[in-house]
Amino acid sequence: MKAISKCLTCHVNQAQRILDKFVISEHEKWNILKKVLNDLSQLNYNLKPIDIAEVMYEKLENYLNKSDLYSEEKKKSNDAALSLYKDFKSRILDSSDPLYEAAKLSVAGNLIDFGAKKGSTEELFKQVIDIWNQPFSIDDFEEFKKSLFSSKNLLFIADNAGELVFDMLFIEIIKETLHDIEIFVALKGKPIINDATVDDGKYIGIEKFATIIDTKLKTAGASLPKSSEEFRRLFYDSDIIIAKGQGNFEGLSEESRNNLFFALVSKCEVISDFIGVEKNSKLFMNSKRIRQE
Amino acid sequence: MKAISKCLTCHVNQAQRILDKFVISEHEKWNILKKVLNDLSQLNYNLKPIDIAEVMYEKLENYLNKSDLYSEEKKKSNDAALSLYKDFKSRILDSSDPLYEAAKLSVAGNLIDFGAKKGSTEELFKQVIDIWNQPFSIDDFEEFKKSLFSSKNLLFIADNAGELVFDMLFIEIIKETLHDIEIFVALKGKPIINDATVDDGKYIGIEKFATIIDTKLKTAGASLPKSSEEFRRLFYDSDIIIAKGQGNFEGLSEESRNNLFFALVSKCEVISDFIGVEKNSKLFMNSKRIRQE
Repeated sequence: MKAISKCLTCHVNQAQRILDKFVISEHEKWNILKKVLNDLSQLNYNLKPIDIAEVMYEKLENYLNKSDLYSEEKKKSNDAALSLYKDFKSRILDSSDPLYEAAKLSVAGNLIDFGAKKGSTEELFKQVIDIWNQPFSIDDFEEFKKSLFSSKNLLFIADNAGELVFDMLFIEIIKETLHDIEIFVALKGKPIINDATVDDGKYIGIEKFATIIDTKLKTAGASLPKSSEEFRRLFYDSDIIIAKGQGNFEGLSEESRNNLFFALVSKCEVISDFIGVEKNSKLFMNSKRIRQE
Repeated sequence: MKAISKCLTCHVNQAQRILDKFVISEHEKWNILKKVLNDLSQLNYNLKPIDIAEVMYEKLENYLNKSDLYSEEKKKSNDAALSLYKDFKSRILDSSDPLYEAAKLSVAGNLIDFGAKKGSTEELFKQVIDIWNQPFSIDDFEEFKKSLFSSKNLLFIADNAGELVFDMLFIEIIKETLHDIEIFVALKGKPIINDATVDDGKYIGIEKFATIIDTKLKTAGASLPKSSEEFRRLFYDSDIIIAKGQGNFEGLSEESRNNLFFALVSKCEVISDFIGVEKNSKLFMNSKRIRQE
């Protein structure tokens, strides 16, 4: 999907939040923000939102001389989610439809997004639990399940750290349901915002249930032309795909392939309007629903 | 007071709101916003927030080929406030301290600000009524009253349209209390955001109670070096001054003169932090409280 002017404004607000976090001197904040405004003022129309993020975060990291702007938040949200794993697994297994219940938790976990959201880790996790039991606004899960049962392999394109723990739980339940399915989980090569990296995957132990694939991407969402050969091959060859989050939606909404499911919370106005749902909707939808102009 | 990086970000958000209001094509919005980002990226540190507003609104008006971006909202809020005038005057006269009651309404009216606030006119007026009866967070009204009783003339530096009707009510009550006082009300020469202009003053009939002064300004707050000779003279010669709103605070906080009172709602984080109060505080304060670094 194409970025619109609101995406530029959103990135200015993101830059401001990062400057407020790392820079003390108001004069320095002013000077760095001016550089960011200048960088953004040079971007051409027809970009995807993740292309704006790629440019802006790379520039900001240079200006701030930092390569991982959200390392603390990622660690904190991985640990917070891990501490809930056992309890959440029991709740899922006790439910009438564990697969569906796990999918709903995995999508609710998409709220954990420090690019789109302000607020503390604790508040975010409270919100995750709150919306876990809410129904999907677009619900293609039955269709997903049908395809899943005839699939030999599944590619899971992850989004954020913390959230990844709930994805792991979903993946575990898939494995418990279909013992022979092979699952690949695609993770970022390098840090971008709070996207889950290969290191996050290893940290939480996702390898017990799935093979880690390094997308080699440093974009806040999957961009096929920029990704690793391995990721691209799996994208085209896998029987079924789950792509989590807004960034992967932005990057892959124009791709046409069967059995590609977007699983996300629509956290911004631009994406919600594009899909045609209320902001903060929980979505599990077949990519066929998206018709790009 | 000096602008900080948050003021740049705030102006980007203001530009976005204006583009969403006037421009339909996303491509055109993108191109205009890029120009605004570029304009803002060239501003030097040490400006006042009203200096940013002056540059940005002038540029935006050129890009949009419109000279009055809030004419509709101004008309609507003048009319809405006028429709409440009689009823509000009765409530004030029935109170135990009409002068104080009128001052509180005048300051509550400062919420009517389309630069700082989103939302409909109706919602804003509801909020005005809600906070009318709340106490001032900084309350130098007794000191003001004491000075007022020994003043022969008063300069009232107005802020926004709509709000101006409640200012007129305050001025009317001052005149009913001190029959011989001469009151001058300073209004903008040309439209800037939703600041009250000479035309707004005439429209609501403020001349019945005060002499209109054209500041000749097109800045969102009083800037003495840029203002009319007449306004500057009155600023230095008046016995007592009330300066309404954030813009006038930004422009005059460094001026040192006696009996200058700032009357405003602190609607943004930057000004609230600068003064040292919670956001959305209702303030009636002597300018002596402000010590510029």
